[in-house]
Amino acid sequence: MRYELYYWPTIQGRGEFVRLALEEGAADYVDVARMPERKGMGVPAMMRLMKEAPAGRLPYAPPFLKAGRQVIAQTANILLFLGPRLALVPRAEAGRLWVHQLQLTIADLVSEAHDTHHPIAGSLYYDEQKPEAKRRAGNFRAERLPKFLGYLENVLAHNPGGDRHLVGRSLSYVDLSMFQVIEGLRYAFPRTMEGMSRKHPRLMALHRRVKDRPRIAAYLASDRRIPFNQHGIFRHYPELD
Amino acid sequence: MRYELYYWPTIQGRGEFVRLALEEGAADYVDVARMPERKGMGVPAMMRLMKEAPAGRLPYAPPFLKAGRQVIAQTANILLFLGPRLALVPRAEAGRLWVHQLQLTIADLVSEAHDTHHPIAGSLYYDEQKPEAKRRAGNFRAERLPKFLGYLENVLAHNPGGDRHLVGRSLSYVDLSMFQVIEGLRYAFPRTMEGMSRKHPRLMALHRRVKDRPRIAAYLASDRRIPFNQHGIFRHYPELD
Repeated sequence: MRYELYYWPTIQGRGEFVRLALEEGAADYVDVARMPERKGMGVPAMMRLMKEAPAGRLPYAPPFLKAGRQVIAQTANILLFLGPRLALVPRAEAGRLWVHQLQLTIADLVSEAHDTHHPIAGSLYYDEQKPEAKRRAGNFRAERLPKFLGYLENVLAHNPGGDRHLVGRSLSYVDLSMFQVIEGLRYAFPRTMEGMSRKHPRLMALHRRVKDRPRIAAYLASDRRIPFNQHGIFRHYPELD
Repeated sequence: MRYELYYWPTIQGRGEFVRLALEEGAADYVDVARMPERKGMGVPAMMRLMKEAPAGRLPYAPPFLKAGRQVIAQTANILLFLGPRLALVPRAEAGRLWVHQLQLTIADLVSEAHDTHHPIAGSLYYDEQKPEAKRRAGNFRAERLPKFLGYLENVLAHNPGGDRHLVGRSLSYVDLSMFQVIEGLRYAFPRTMEGMSRKHPRLMALHRRVKDRPRIAAYLASDRRIPFNQHGIFRHYPELD
């Protein structure tokens, strides 16, 4: 099965959680919106599919994945679909729900990280909501980020399979997402994250191990990995850190 | 199987999406935090389980559901679990993922509705973030709400099974959630929603049909249904409408 991923071609964004799973799972996939328009791909192909998905199953927004005739959107839902197909989840239903639950909690953290620079509206520029961004980022650094990371560190500490993975004894897609969130937070909030590293040794070790996995390391070194920039979810504004 | 639901006892909040599914599914369940502490229930029982969930599967926040030894959190994840057990999803995997995808999109709308009155921090009072709330609510009314409702109306219009349900030819849990969101939006933004009703006839008809279902109507008339108030997700501040 050749998967088709549809996501904005110039940012990591939410699509990156899917890219990491596809890469670690050694899936055959094409990142459609990054391919040439003259070959019938690119952003126009993404826009077309948003308006005419098979069976009326329209995505609300990218990312979405095409697998045969099926179109699946919502990042966590795409990973729910891919998990068993790429051997990135436990076998039992209970374990799969637990992985998904953690993925949804990470999605909440990602939304809140985004809203630090866009607390009023995604359609306005950062400069149009700077005072509000400073207030929201202050609360994020002081309360929300420590609460989320403290929780996730605690999940690692309580995993009966050991603290090398969030769930069980082997890698699941939520470990990859956890890597991506720490990577993004370090880009956006280097000072804050430096201060938090010591309190979250298990998370930091997990981040390092994922980064060093051969397929992930090869991906990160390739030009398939889009660098962080000031258009994605994680943006570095020194005044917010 | 007797299900145990754990959620804050004085608000509808996110727990309400689970309550509606349990009620429509005629499930045997107990709303633990609303039961007496002297019987070992109430909020303290909820707090205990958050710290000592079986197999280290700690919820980040309520709501969560206990089913035997299994503890499941994140509203959409709870519904993913309950859907097949309460006959509130299609049989095929593709249909179930599509229901879940819509539920996650509704969850995004719910978060944005909440942030209209708390754009800076959930830990601050509304009065401490009123100017920011006015700005964010203005954008929500003008851009975000029309985009979400327009999308969901379009999903109804494109459903090959007809516009009586969001998915297929029969009721699924996402129809119940859609009812709840419209109910909440009408409470919080009565003026805005009056203006939007005519443009979204299918959504409004769906809302009415769900409200009239015998089990839902009986639930809404019972004291199990907590009235809307100024502590939940949907709050009525006339200056934000």
